[in-house]
Amino acid sequence: MPHINLPNLPGIRGPMAFRPESSKPLNELVDVLLRQPNSLTQGERELIATYVSSLNTCHYCQSIHGAIAAAHLDGDEALVACVKQDFHSAAITPKLKALLTIAGKVQQDGKKVTTGDVQAARSEGATDLEIHDTVLIAAAFCMYNRYVDGLATVQPEDPALYRERGKMVARDGYVAVNLPNVIHAEAAEMAAK
Amino acid sequence: MPHINLPNLPGIRGPMAFRPESSKPLNELVDVLLRQPNSLTQGERELIATYVSSLNTCHYCQSIHGAIAAAHLDGDEALVACVKQDFHSAAITPKLKALLTIAGKVQQDGKKVTTGDVQAARSEGATDLEIHDTVLIAAAFCMYNRYVDGLATVQPEDPALYRERGKMVARDGYVAVNLPNVIHAEAAEMAAK
Repeated sequence: MPHINLPNLPGIRGPMAFRPESSKPLNELVDVLLRQPNSLTQGERELIATYVSSLNTCHYCQSIHGAIAAAHLDGDEALVACVKQDFHSAAITPKLKALLTIAGKVQQDGKKVTTGDVQAARSEGATDLEIHDTVLIAAAFCMYNRYVDGLATVQPEDPALYRERGKMVARDGYVAVNLPNVIHAEAAEMAAK
Repeated sequence: MPHINLPNLPGIRGPMAFRPESSKPLNELVDVLLRQPNSLTQGERELIATYVSSLNTCHYCQSIHGAIAAAHLDGDEALVACVKQDFHSAAITPKLKALLTIAGKVQQDGKKVTTGDVQAARSEGATDLEIHDTVLIAAAFCMYNRYVDGLATVQPEDPALYRERGKMVARDGYVAVNLPNVIHAEAAEMAAK
């Protein structure tokens, strides 16, 4: 039961429907970071978001971004699970491992990122923009996770629900699925059930 | 020395000048949360941002938002210091104290916010929107703080610098002082020094 009277939608979509003024920049930010053209693939960026959300134990965010990541990675849910559990043993590039190390430090406290962490990423080929975006993705998910959990939003358990929506977001992007009229139509549909 | 090659500007303004695509939603978000008309005053909202930034020990953010808060509160820097040190003893409303309690929980983990915390805020007159905005301000500063610290941005010590800029932001707002052309002119000026 959410702490405040939110539209009956799972996870972040409840407060997003409640407060469209803040939802606009929140959606634009995730679109720039995870969706827009980048030398890191969409799958890699979703893995960073999923990993940070799992460190913050945010069930909704790690489930939906894990599902979006899997959708970008040929449905490889085992890889997503492996990244969350022990990314060092996952079948991902050394560059992504170095970036996940930085993301994990940012999740704790930005000051924990060392020159050595950044050098390690750079020696695996990471650019300044990739390091910047990794830090900001990790920081941003420390926000999204706290927003979702801090309002005690509804966070469904059923993996099928996330899988289905993950495919849709991977296909259509964040801006399209979170347009105010789309969210409001969904909230009305949920309310009518 | 920042971890990546950033324009020579203090705090968040370095990475904001480096990556205008993400700066746009970051600026819009802080504008909606701290600047746009709200039943919480600008001073109260800046105090929430300052308090969370102090919990995250982000020197730049607590200094600049503390200065903006003071500028909104007739220059009362002692009040800002008191809120950071022990807000229970500060000369602020019981409602703001209840909201700061929620913000402090969000800073740790959104799941720490209890029904009792929310009831306490409501019994002091807090609305759903005020509770929502408090949670999102606290969450957002967990992002901004990690962004600023995670890139090891330049964070000047001199309080006079923050005081001066705090007055300017309080007067002109975030969007005006962070327009891309304004930031780039400042970066060029710093580079020429």
